Amino acid sequence: MRISEVARRAGLPVATVKYYLREGLLPAGTLTAPNQADYGEPHIRRLRLIRTLREVGGLEIERIRRVIAAIEDENLSRHELFGVADRAREPARTSAETTDETRQARAEVDKFVQGLGWRVRPDAAGRQELADALAGLRRLGREYGTEVFRPYAEAADRMAAWEVSAIPTSDPRSVAVERMVVGTVVFEAVFNALRRLAHEHHSATLSA
Amino acid sequence: MRISEVARRAGLPVATVKYYLREGLLPAGTLTAPNQADYGEPHIRRLRLIRTLREVGGLEIERIRRVIAAIEDENLSRHELFGVADRAREPARTSAETTDETRQARAEVDKFVQGLGWRVRPDAAGRQELADALAGLRRLGREYGTEVFRPYAEAADRMAAWEVSAIPTSDPRSVAVERMVVGTVVFEAVFNALRRLAHEHHSATLSA
Repeated sequence: MRISEVARRAGLPVATVKYYLREGLLPAGTLTAPNQADYGEPHIRRLRLIRTLREVGGLEIERIRRVIAAIEDENLSRHELFGVADRAREPARTSAETTDETRQARAEVDKFVQGLGWRVRPDAAGRQELADALAGLRRLGREYGTEVFRPYAEAADRMAAWEVSAIPTSDPRSVAVERMVVGTVVFEAVFNALRRLAHEHHSATLSA
Repeated sequence: MRISEVARRAGLPVATVKYYLREGLLPAGTLTAPNQADYGEPHIRRLRLIRTLREVGGLEIERIRRVIAAIEDENLSRHELFGVADRAREPARTSAETTDETRQARAEVDKFVQGLGWRVRPDAAGRQELADALAGLRRLGREYGTEVFRPYAEAADRMAAWEVSAIPTSDPRSVAVERMVVGTVVFEAVFNALRRLAHEHHSATLSA
């Protein structure tokens, strides 16, 4: 089908589809004439994935590129794929400079993660995010230790155990990886939205 | 103290502090000479708050501006403040156009929220985010209903009840609001990081 038809079915402007083609997020169509290409269902599916990652997950093009590279890399194991889906969601943060306080916070976080018994890469970005959060709280004058993370870690542990087990191991690789990426990105947005709604509800209940 | 001293103690470059002054995120100092101003501890505290919102929460300047306007608006009730802290965290999304499918998803979400018994504003942005997530999942071919949100809603409900009750009602308003804002923003980042680490752990355990 033509690019206009692909765009219409994915719910995107033609200019956006052309942009994704130029950026390499979408494979080129099959040339049928010097200036005309043919596209198929896989293109529509890819466009819908990109659209969900952008509109629901708020991911920037650069991160979507990493997700797609992982989806296409047949050498990555199922486990590694989960890592890539997770890494793709990591926020583009103003890198905080390394100071004595952030080094100290990082050492405490590593000890905390070890205490949880979690098997995670030493360079998993989540570790540094936790260390930055701890250092940030301390700069604001709160004498917090990593214990403040424990209830969140317990909730995250329950949620992740259930989410990982919910991916059918019988799924073909291409289906499983899309499921992982979408699950990580979309349900992070879902949970954050629900937490804010629940804040409003409980805050109203308390003030009533 | 001078601007250079304030910047040093907040751990920020002088140029950044000047930028926040120009943007109105930081109140002007007291002029002591035509080209020199004096700053105090409240400026340092404000800068540390901005730094944490940016570096840990990834908030953009425009959202930090809204948070600070709320902190300074003495007319907002405690309950409304929680709403502002939460709204400030809402992602800047490419606004999805309103179609039959998003309208339908929104109606289902409103019914779901009502079924939870949550008291939240009809225009709370979290509702639309959930509707966009549902429409996004359906575009990807998943025949989901709002029931897919239920385990997340239960986890969010537990977390928010505990978080709201953890704010001492004896705190002065200025302390309480900073606590709410930081709690919303920093612990959202903390939970998201922990969920990703837990994904990696459980995925590794499953593949082992």
